Amino acid sequence: MLNFEFYNPTRIVFGENTIQRLADLVPAQARVLVVYGGNSAKAFGTIDQVIQALGSREVVEFGGVEANPEYTTLLKAVDLIKAKNLDYILAVGGGSVIDGVKFIAAANKFAEEDKWKILEGTPLTQALPFGVVLTIPATGSEMNAGAVISYRDRGLKRSFHSPLVFPQFSIMDPQKTLTLPERQTMNGVVDSFVHIVEQYVTKDTGASVSDEFAEGLLRVLLKVGPKLKADPQCLPARSDLMWAATNALNGLIRLGQVTDWSVHAIGHQLTALYGIDHARTLAIVLPGVWEYKLEAKQAKLAQMGRKVFALESNDERELALATIVKTEEFFHSLGVATRLRDYNLGENAIPEIVANLEKIGATNLGEDKDIDYVASSKILTSRL
Amino acid sequence: MLNFEFYNPTRIVFGENTIQRLADLVPAQARVLVVYGGNSAKAFGTIDQVIQALGSREVVEFGGVEANPEYTTLLKAVDLIKAKNLDYILAVGGGSVIDGVKFIAAANKFAEEDKWKILEGTPLTQALPFGVVLTIPATGSEMNAGAVISYRDRGLKRSFHSPLVFPQFSIMDPQKTLTLPERQTMNGVVDSFVHIVEQYVTKDTGASVSDEFAEGLLRVLLKVGPKLKADPQCLPARSDLMWAATNALNGLIRLGQVTDWSVHAIGHQLTALYGIDHARTLAIVLPGVWEYKLEAKQAKLAQMGRKVFALESNDERELALATIVKTEEFFHSLGVATRLRDYNLGENAIPEIVANLEKIGATNLGEDKDIDYVASSKILTSRL
Repeated sequence: MLNFEFYNPTRIVFGENTIQRLADLVPAQARVLVVYGGNSAKAFGTIDQVIQALGSREVVEFGGVEANPEYTTLLKAVDLIKAKNLDYILAVGGGSVIDGVKFIAAANKFAEEDKWKILEGTPLTQALPFGVVLTIPATGSEMNAGAVISYRDRGLKRSFHSPLVFPQFSIMDPQKTLTLPERQTMNGVVDSFVHIVEQYVTKDTGASVSDEFAEGLLRVLLKVGPKLKADPQCLPARSDLMWAATNALNGLIRLGQVTDWSVHAIGHQLTALYGIDHARTLAIVLPGVWEYKLEAKQAKLAQMGRKVFALESNDERELALATIVKTEEFFHSLGVATRLRDYNLGENAIPEIVANLEKIGATNLGEDKDIDYVASSKILTSRL
Repeated sequence: MLNFEFYNPTRIVFGENTIQRLADLVPAQARVLVVYGGNSAKAFGTIDQVIQALGSREVVEFGGVEANPEYTTLLKAVDLIKAKNLDYILAVGGGSVIDGVKFIAAANKFAEEDKWKILEGTPLTQALPFGVVLTIPATGSEMNAGAVISYRDRGLKRSFHSPLVFPQFSIMDPQKTLTLPERQTMNGVVDSFVHIVEQYVTKDTGASVSDEFAEGLLRVLLKVGPKLKADPQCLPARSDLMWAATNALNGLIRLGQVTDWSVHAIGHQLTALYGIDHARTLAIVLPGVWEYKLEAKQAKLAQMGRKVFALESNDERELALATIVKTEEFFHSLGVATRLRDYNLGENAIPEIVANLEKIGATNLGEDKDIDYVASSKILTSRL
């Protein structure tokens, strides 16, 4: 097991009817910007509940944060906080809203004029405090200190990380996820699945606890994905998915492990260029990365085959290959297509995607840092 | 899954040669009381390493904290902090030292003269900050906010909990555990095992993630226990045990679950009265509680049999009973005896133990709160 450090101070308040806890979780004197996405948070009454729970606190609303939150939109929220002299943010939504709020919180206290520098690695020294009401299980953003922000004019999608952007708390009421469209639910299953395997299907470092936790979370996803496809109103499955998705990316399962993240790096370009749902880009790229890195990943893929898919064989390579097939079948069973052609992209898209990787210097990807632009191109070609 | 709240701000620094990190983890101006137990921390050079890492900071040493830390000993440390005007504590040791430091940290800021009231439930409003260098994996105290303190003159052993006594950080270097005597290593395996099952072998609430995490940790212990009995110098197994023991009691696996803790409540009296090692008291009591509550626990015991011991049967009761047998066999394989007679205790001890439970009002134990004094007596009788 590799040496590691773990620190995660986010308070989780999980369960039915927990939104009212905002009354004691948000500072009594806070002047709050409530940030949300599309119309569903309004339509399903969540925003009303939130505002009621905030009681007599000063509240300003900021809706319209897009899926893959857009830099230029978020800057408007930064201006609004300044104009209204607010001092606390509440994110009500899924990963896009939470990531957006992390950026708003950071940008509000960022000394330089060009806030995009936060995405280019300038370290933060301060951020506004904020809390979360989670309505979409998928990204784990509710319990981590990272965010991914898009800049559509420049075709960019980049991430930043800082311990200053851990949410102070996240309220997770699985009832709030009962109204999610099937597409978003299944995206959440796939997104969580890929978060887990990017921290698990790498080299074997002998990190038994992290391996067991990763395998356990994958088995939970294999169980709840089909259950929710058949019965979206199944609250126990909604609860399991919600808590599994958080643990998939709260830092716990990476401890002592080597991580990969090449699937995310390549996938982000598919969203930036063509607007494909984040989870679906991962489902496209993952099998390609696994096949390309078959030799290096064979031991962990075989272990995953045995422990997650209950496959049996004495041939490690056969197990590894079967695990790739089983994973792709799992995505298909959720209605998630895994080929570029399924999203109307052909061979001519590949140079464009690779050019985008070049633009942000995303060479040397993966646990061995050996996925360069040529390798990314090969991986994408295998996914036509 | 039940509603839950989770908050754990302790920073974990895990791995080889991490003690030097004290230099940046302890505040630069801190005036530090370094607290340890017996002579091993001195003899094996850990205290020297710690003091070197603390550099020019003011350091006062306080050794001699006993296994099952003693109230009257700890009060001397409280006085020493006052006399020397110290403002930070560093625990170097295992659960007893850490628990002791939690009490010292709390007592230092406790307004009332009678510090035992902390153990009787008077809530804390402040505590001194402290960090940990862990040398014995077992209790999980390095990443939780609870402590168990003994008062030998009164034959008492009680616990307290407060978010104010989370360690600020815990340094966990598995190399520091290579010199542990076999007895302490095996106690650590058993202690962690019982921590897990007291949060898992209860009612089935459908908390899939917590179930998977608990089962995974139990499988890790089943693997590393025999490995370390055969080869105490196996560093990978030392690492796995150390991290598994932390996760067994850092609050993670109880989330959404019903917990039991009757085994601990009864076991504590065996330590308080007869000085039996904490872990060994748990190994004595656990099978008795499981047999007494067989009907209520049958589903989870059977699940544990299938998923942890890989037992197969269509008969749930048979699986549950086999799980109890397998668990006791596991303890025996580690050299841990599981009967009162193995510790020279006979029938006449039972009224004495039960009288102690009565003294602290430990009736209504277990997940159904139905283990009263009569039930405790029956459970103990079954363990003669």
